[in-house]
Amino acid sequence: MKTEQPNYYPSNHPPDDFAEADRAAGFEVGADFERFDQRNDMFSRAFWDDGVQSKEALAFFRSHADRPASRQADGFTQKDYALRNAAWAVADDYADRNKANGLREGFQDPQEPRYPPAEQKLKIDDPAAMTLEIKRVAHFFGAHMAGVTALDPRWLYATRTEVRSFEPKPNDLPDGLTNVIVMGHGMDYDLVNAYPSALAGAAVGMGYSGEATTVAQLSQYIRNLGYQAVGSMNDTALVIPMAIQAGLGEYGRNQMVITKDYGPRVRFSKIFTDMPLAHDQPKPFGVTEFCNVCRRCADACPPKALPFGPPEVGRANRSAIKGVKKWTADCEKCFGFWVKMKSDCAICMRVCPFNKDFRKPIMRLARRLAGTRLRRLMLWLDIKLGYGKRIAPNKWWNP
Amino acid sequence: MKTEQPNYYPSNHPPDDFAEADRAAGFEVGADFERFDQRNDMFSRAFWDDGVQSKEALAFFRSHADRPASRQADGFTQKDYALRNAAWAVADDYADRNKANGLREGFQDPQEPRYPPAEQKLKIDDPAAMTLEIKRVAHFFGAHMAGVTALDPRWLYATRTEVRSFEPKPNDLPDGLTNVIVMGHGMDYDLVNAYPSALAGAAVGMGYSGEATTVAQLSQYIRNLGYQAVGSMNDTALVIPMAIQAGLGEYGRNQMVITKDYGPRVRFSKIFTDMPLAHDQPKPFGVTEFCNVCRRCADACPPKALPFGPPEVGRANRSAIKGVKKWTADCEKCFGFWVKMKSDCAICMRVCPFNKDFRKPIMRLARRLAGTRLRRLMLWLDIKLGYGKRIAPNKWWNP
Repeated sequence: MKTEQPNYYPSNHPPDDFAEADRAAGFEVGADFERFDQRNDMFSRAFWDDGVQSKEALAFFRSHADRPASRQADGFTQKDYALRNAAWAVADDYADRNKANGLREGFQDPQEPRYPPAEQKLKIDDPAAMTLEIKRVAHFFGAHMAGVTALDPRWLYATRTEVRSFEPKPNDLPDGLTNVIVMGHGMDYDLVNAYPSALAGAAVGMGYSGEATTVAQLSQYIRNLGYQAVGSMNDTALVIPMAIQAGLGEYGRNQMVITKDYGPRVRFSKIFTDMPLAHDQPKPFGVTEFCNVCRRCADACPPKALPFGPPEVGRANRSAIKGVKKWTADCEKCFGFWVKMKSDCAICMRVCPFNKDFRKPIMRLARRLAGTRLRRLMLWLDIKLGYGKRIAPNKWWNP
Repeated sequence: MKTEQPNYYPSNHPPDDFAEADRAAGFEVGADFERFDQRNDMFSRAFWDDGVQSKEALAFFRSHADRPASRQADGFTQKDYALRNAAWAVADDYADRNKANGLREGFQDPQEPRYPPAEQKLKIDDPAAMTLEIKRVAHFFGAHMAGVTALDPRWLYATRTEVRSFEPKPNDLPDGLTNVIVMGHGMDYDLVNAYPSALAGAAVGMGYSGEATTVAQLSQYIRNLGYQAVGSMNDTALVIPMAIQAGLGEYGRNQMVITKDYGPRVRFSKIFTDMPLAHDQPKPFGVTEFCNVCRRCADACPPKALPFGPPEVGRANRSAIKGVKKWTADCEKCFGFWVKMKSDCAICMRVCPFNKDFRKPIMRLARRLAGTRLRRLMLWLDIKLGYGKRIAPNKWWNP
């Protein structure tokens, strides 16, 4: 593990010392790279961009609130919506805590600290040992995985979004936050297999609600030890590249971090801190090579929002980051489909051959196969054996 | 399971139809029974009762906040306090949500509903099937156990406590809440074995934080189905008799509900609802008979706050309920010890022979033995084999 901290500084033009980090993570970042503006993500654009804003888009958001209009189709009944929306309740409660002050914690703004850092700072002689301990505490507070990386300012949003006006506002962080603890919350296997449906969205709600509490607890733990800690969910920075840099997984064609224990079924959150910690390294296990030959997500995507070809620089629209060579979705098509369905969609998560219950030895064997030159065989078997098929939501209710 | 609802009504003098419920639960409630006033519990008295209030008592509460004074003894270092207080963060965040309105949600007031009940009411033809489903959803939202009972108004607090003045205020509930869903969150076995220590209190904090989120989610789920649901933790009613009536365990000499899966290591919460549900029955498994011959908790209690004799009517002070024949602690002595330690204490939970890791088959065998006439043998073995001994908190940090 590396313990020295690279001298990263916020800039739209990354200095040369990113080169090594990018090699390890498999990133290709061009000279035309620009930090991403949060107001360009689809969830923000739905509120300010005439090209995206619509009555239907607002209905999509509203359907997550109290009285969803039940569609009486399997997966879209009152019970399905009830479960999904209730699963979100904790994340929503945190998001609304400081609504009166124009904050949307966990989504457009980091969590407000419960208490400031203790005056007494715990002496840390061995950052590597402290890192192991922090990861153990993260698990104690409900995270399913945790990794640490240096704060790479390229992934910080260029600006945050002011949720009342949807105008940009500064993405301020305290000085000295050199490290990021990235955490993952695994999602329910059976629910994800019920995508697309309102019921399946309960897995997302549970992920976000779990994040909200783990981030609140772990960030307060760090502050109780005298260090700064800014707890963050979807706000403040792109978590995907950070999760990869922190060794939690590899980037997939479906735009997701494919993790070893939960495949693509993970919600990520992060804590920015000045606590001295050792850094994890990216840990590839064959995902890139697998995605090169597999197009199951792209094939299965109803609005054809996912790429079929190799990673590319370039973007379909302003919701994609500029200057990074990668598989990039057309988020307008993706979100457009959500709005039409009045529900989120993650078919690309469901059909991914890495979407398995890896507690089972046979599935771990399949994962190992996927990481070898026999990956095409694994893919063939995966399809042949019927993995990735939708499970009727009704089955979740009546197991 | 019983599905008809007894015609319970709030009264200080329970009607005759409690008799059957009390026989099943093993309760002996006398004619002089009076509902308990929440302001008589020690946590309230510390703020208004001259006999309890002290600088030290306030310091106890303060030590749960941001900057605990580290005592540098094993189990009381900055890390121990940091973990305990961070574990509480979510319960505290919920408690403080409506502080400005004089509420302390989950402790002196029930949780404010996120959204009111949906206008459309789910049709429930089979309350027994619905009950099984509600229990499954409770588990999905993080409860480790759940049971249902008729709302027995004797356990409702006679009054709530106004947290600004510590004066009594009405304990109002909406009409028609005939059922109670009681939930339990199991506590970490290793942490409980580290009692007494600040570290061990992290198990309590996790319990309360878990309760806060499960109650928020499950009560919103029920409201999303069109029914009323009032989410409650320590507020509104005594949960111990409700947990017993709901079949979650038996009452022990240590004042705790002894559950089958977690022994005494459980925090309980509840949801009051008008959803038609089937009722569980008390499920004794030999605890009463065991506690009759076992005095480990009473022996181990440093301030000797626990009774050595058989269940009795009568009370040491106003913090005990009136007119119930049961094992009753002297809460003034108990809380006085907490204040002296500047930390909570649950030695009586640690030394209880039912404090076992029942995931292990051998421990389930011991539990079965404890429920037979060989209970004295089990007790002898339990002591002989060294169960109930304190584990150094340092061991938790360095497993």
